[in-house]
Amino acid sequence: WAKSSSSSHHYRLYLDGITLPSPGTHCNWTTWLGGLYHWTLRLPSRCGTRDYNPKQMAIREKVFNTIIGCFKRHGAETIDTPVFELKETLTGKYGEDSKLIYDLKDQGGELLSLRYDLTVPFARYLAMNKISNIKRYHIAKVYRRDNPAMTRGRYREFYQCDFDIAGQYDPMIPDAECLKIVHEILSELELGDFRIKVNDRRILDGMFAVCGVPDDKFRTICSTVDKLDKMSWEDVRSEMVKEKGLSEEAADQIGQYVSMQGGKDLAERLLQDAKMSQSKQACAGLTDMKLLFSYLELFQVTDKVVFDLSLARGLDYYTGVIYEAILTQNGPAPEAGEKGEEGVSVGSVAGGGRYDGLVGMFDPKGRKVPCVGVSIGIERVFSILEQKASAEKVRTTETQVMVASAQKNLLEERLKLTAELWNAGIKAEVMYKKNPKLLSQLQHCEDSGIPLVAILGEQELKDGVVKLRDVHSREEADVLRAELVEEIKKRIADV
Amino acid sequence: WAKSSSSSHHYRLYLDGITLPSPGTHCNWTTWLGGLYHWTLRLPSRCGTRDYNPKQMAIREKVFNTIIGCFKRHGAETIDTPVFELKETLTGKYGEDSKLIYDLKDQGGELLSLRYDLTVPFARYLAMNKISNIKRYHIAKVYRRDNPAMTRGRYREFYQCDFDIAGQYDPMIPDAECLKIVHEILSELELGDFRIKVNDRRILDGMFAVCGVPDDKFRTICSTVDKLDKMSWEDVRSEMVKEKGLSEEAADQIGQYVSMQGGKDLAERLLQDAKMSQSKQACAGLTDMKLLFSYLELFQVTDKVVFDLSLARGLDYYTGVIYEAILTQNGPAPEAGEKGEEGVSVGSVAGGGRYDGLVGMFDPKGRKVPCVGVSIGIERVFSILEQKASAEKVRTTETQVMVASAQKNLLEERLKLTAELWNAGIKAEVMYKKNPKLLSQLQHCEDSGIPLVAILGEQELKDGVVKLRDVHSREEADVLRAELVEEIKKRIADV
Repeated sequence: WAKSSSSSHHYRLYLDGITLPSPGTHCNWTTWLGGLYHWTLRLPSRCGTRDYNPKQMAIREKVFNTIIGCFKRHGAETIDTPVFELKETLTGKYGEDSKLIYDLKDQGGELLSLRYDLTVPFARYLAMNKISNIKRYHIAKVYRRDNPAMTRGRYREFYQCDFDIAGQYDPMIPDAECLKIVHEILSELELGDFRIKVNDRRILDGMFAVCGVPDDKFRTICSTVDKLDKMSWEDVRSEMVKEKGLSEEAADQIGQYVSMQGGKDLAERLLQDAKMSQSKQACAGLTDMKLLFSYLELFQVTDKVVFDLSLARGLDYYTGVIYEAILTQNGPAPEAGEKGEEGVSVGSVAGGGRYDGLVGMFDPKGRKVPCVGVSIGIERVFSILEQKASAEKVRTTETQVMVASAQKNLLEERLKLTAELWNAGIKAEVMYKKNPKLLSQLQHCEDSGIPLVAILGEQELKDGVVKLRDVHSREEADVLRAELVEEIKKRIADV
Repeated sequence: WAKSSSSSHHYRLYLDGITLPSPGTHCNWTTWLGGLYHWTLRLPSRCGTRDYNPKQMAIREKVFNTIIGCFKRHGAETIDTPVFELKETLTGKYGEDSKLIYDLKDQGGELLSLRYDLTVPFARYLAMNKISNIKRYHIAKVYRRDNPAMTRGRYREFYQCDFDIAGQYDPMIPDAECLKIVHEILSELELGDFRIKVNDRRILDGMFAVCGVPDDKFRTICSTVDKLDKMSWEDVRSEMVKEKGLSEEAADQIGQYVSMQGGKDLAERLLQDAKMSQSKQACAGLTDMKLLFSYLELFQVTDKVVFDLSLARGLDYYTGVIYEAILTQNGPAPEAGEKGEEGVSVGSVAGGGRYDGLVGMFDPKGRKVPCVGVSIGIERVFSILEQKASAEKVRTTETQVMVASAQKNLLEERLKLTAELWNAGIKAEVMYKKNPKLLSQLQHCEDSGIPLVAILGEQELKDGVVKLRDVHSREEADVLRAELVEEIKKRIADV
C-alpha cells in the first residue's frame, strides 16, 4: 500500500490541472502516464466499491424487475432523494453506527453526508412535504464507512430496496403486508428455503423491564441480544454481565425468554406468563403479535414466519414490530461474525419493522406519522444469483437480428437495412466494418446469443429479398424485403 | 442563513451520538426537536439537489424506458461504476471545470471524489479490465460543485444517460450510429423540433492553425469559440484579442470560418478552400465529415443535422467528431448565459463526440481504445415533460383493482381476496381499515386512477361471487369468484 499510495500522491501533484495534449502528441504522454498508472489505476478498493459488468447488470436487471414488479403489484409509488443529505439530518438516528457515515469535504456551503440508508431520507421527505400517508418503494445506493479491518467481501456502496407504508391505520394490517411482500419476493427469486423471524420492540422492552434491566440499559442490552444470531448465549450473557454491568439474575431471566420461538400460540402463552403479563408494553406487543399472525394466516405465509424473542435489530428508530428474513439453505455460507448491509448477519436477506417516531423527529410541530417498512438485502441476493449463473451463459443484450453480408462492398446496403429495422422497432446490430467476414458476423451472433441473421448479397438485392438465417438451427430462407419486419417479429414471438 | 446554520450547529453538537428515547417518552423530545428543525429541516438547497415526488418519478420512468429502449434496440449492454472514484482518476480530465469536482472528506484511506461524468469512469473501466471493444449505455447520477452564484435552476446532482461505442472500427460508422440514436430519442420523446450541430476537433485545430493561432493557444481559443452559442461574435472576438492575446488578423480569419453552416457540400467546399486545405488535420476531419454525412443519408437523419464550424464543446478529451443537439422550439426558454449539465447552453439536450485518447491515459502501456459516444441531457428533458404534464393527471401507481366492501366486519374477507389476486399476479390494493366507508374506497380509486373495484358483501360471499365495478362507467356485474382473475385480466386488456 505504501508504495501505491505514495506514487498516487506523486501522480496527483504532478498532473493537477493539466489538460490532455492535443491529438497526435499523446503517445509519449500516455506511455509516461502508464508507468505511474501501473501503480495507481484501481478502484477505491479499501472503500469496498465495485464496477458491475454487463453480465452482473443483466442479473441485476432481472432481480430489480422481480422486486419492482412485486412492489407495483402492491400498489406502491416510488420517490427519489439526493445521494447526500445535510449532515445534521443523519445525526443521532443510527446510534453506535453513526461513526460509519461518509462526510463530504467542506468546500463551502452546508456540511453534507452520503445517505446511510433510505429510511431517514424518507422520513425527512414526509416531514418536509407534510405527507401523512403514502405507500412507496425506493431503490437506490447507500454508503457506509465500515472499518476496513472488519470488511470481509462487504461493500461500502450498496443498493437498498425499501418498501414502506406511512399512515395512521388499524393495527398490524400494513405490517402484515410488508411480511407478505418479503414472502413473495424471496419465493419468486428462488433463493432456496427461508424463514422470517418476527419480534416487537415493545415485547423486548417489556421483557427487559420485568427481568430487572434498568431503563437506561435497554438499548445497550438490546444490541447485545442482537448478537445472538452469531454469538453463543454464554458469550452474550458474559457481555451483558461483564461489559454492560447487568446483574446475573437479570441476564439469566433474559436467557430464558430469548430462547423461545413459536407462533400465535407462543404469543398467547406469554400473555399468560406471570412475569411478562406485568408489563403493559409487553402485553400490547403480544396482543398485536397475535393479531399479526391472524392476518398472516389469511395471507397464507405463516409457513415461513417465526415469532422469535431473540430478534432485536440494531437500529434505534424501531418502535414496534421488527422482522428479519434469513436463508436456511443454499447460497454462500455466511462468514462467522459477518454483518451484512442491513446490519444483520449475512444469512439475512431482508429486514425491517415499525418506526412510529422517526418522522415526528423531523416535523417542526413533532407531528407523528406511523411507518412500517422492509428493506431487501439486494447485494446478498445478487451474489447468490451471480454464483448460480457463474456457469451458465447470460445474455447481456436483447439484439434480435444481425444484419450481415457474405460479399464485399455492401456496407451501405447493410446500414440501410439496419436503419429500416431500427425504425420498425426491431433490435438490430450491424458490424462497423466495410467488409467483415461472414464467419465473424455469425460468430458474433453465437457469442452474444443473437437468434437471427439477415444476410444481404448481390442476388438477394436483385430479387428484393433477404436471406433470414436461424442461428441455432442454421436454416436459411429467403424473405421478401417488404415482409422482413413481420417475419422477424413472428420468429421472435415463437422463440 | 446565519441564524439557520448557527442553530443547526448547536443542534448537531447537542444531538451527536444520542439515540432515540424509548417509545412513549418521545413526545416531549420531538416537540423540543421541532423547535430546532423549524430552522434546520431542509435539503442541501444551495447544493442544488432535489427530491423526486411520485409524479416526477412516473414521468422519469417513461423517459428512461424510451431511452433505454432505444439503446437496447441498438444492441447496447449496460455497466455500472461506483458513485465515487479515486480523486486522481478524475484529475486532469476536465480542464477548467476540474474545480467543480466534489471531494469526500478525508476520513482515512484514499482521497475520493464524486464522479463528474460517466465518460472518465467508463474509460477507467475499459483500461482496468483490458476491454478493447464494447457498446454500452450507462444511466446514473453525476455531481458538480457549480458556483452557487451562477446556479440558475441548475442541479448539482443530475442524471446522465450515456451511450458509447469503444473499439477500432472503420471510420465514421459508430459515429453515425450515435447521431442516429440522438435523432431517434429526441423524435420519440416529442420535445418539439430539434437540430443536431456537428463539427470535428481536427477541423477546429486545423482552422486555428491556418488562421495563425499559436499551438499553445488552441485549447483556450477553443473554449472562447465554444461561447458563440450565447455570446455575440463581437464579444467572442474581443475576448480572444483582449483576454487571450490573439492577433486581430487571426481573430478575424476565425470569424469568417465560424459563421459557416451547411452539410456535405460545405465539407467539400472547405476541402477546396485555399487556406483550410493547407492543414492535414483539417483535411482529415473534412474528409471524415463527408463520409459521416453519406452514412447519415443512409440513416435518413440529414434533415436535422448541420455541419457548424462554430461548435467547439468545452471538454478536453474530444479528438474527432463532436456534436450537440438543441431544441429549436417549445420547452422553457433557456436563460441567457445559462449552461446546462453537459456544459453547453441549456437549449442543448444532447452532446458528445469522439475521444480516442482517454482510455490510453488509464492504460499502463498506453494502449489506445478509440471511443465515440453521446450523452442525453436528461434533466432538461424531465423539466420540459414535467411542464407539459403539469396540467394533466399522471398515474403514479399501476394498481388494477381495489378490493372493497360496503358492509362492516369484512376485513378478513377483503384481505383473503386481495392475497388471492396478488398471488395471481393482479395489481391490487385494499384499505388498511377495519370498516372503511365504500365512498372513501371508491374515492381512492378516482384519485389514483384505479380502473376496477372488487366489492365484497355478505350476499356475494353466500353466492360465491364478487361484484366487479368499472370505476369510469360505474357499471357493476357479479362475477363468479373462480372466474374473477380471468375477468379482471380481460377487462385490463380491453382498456
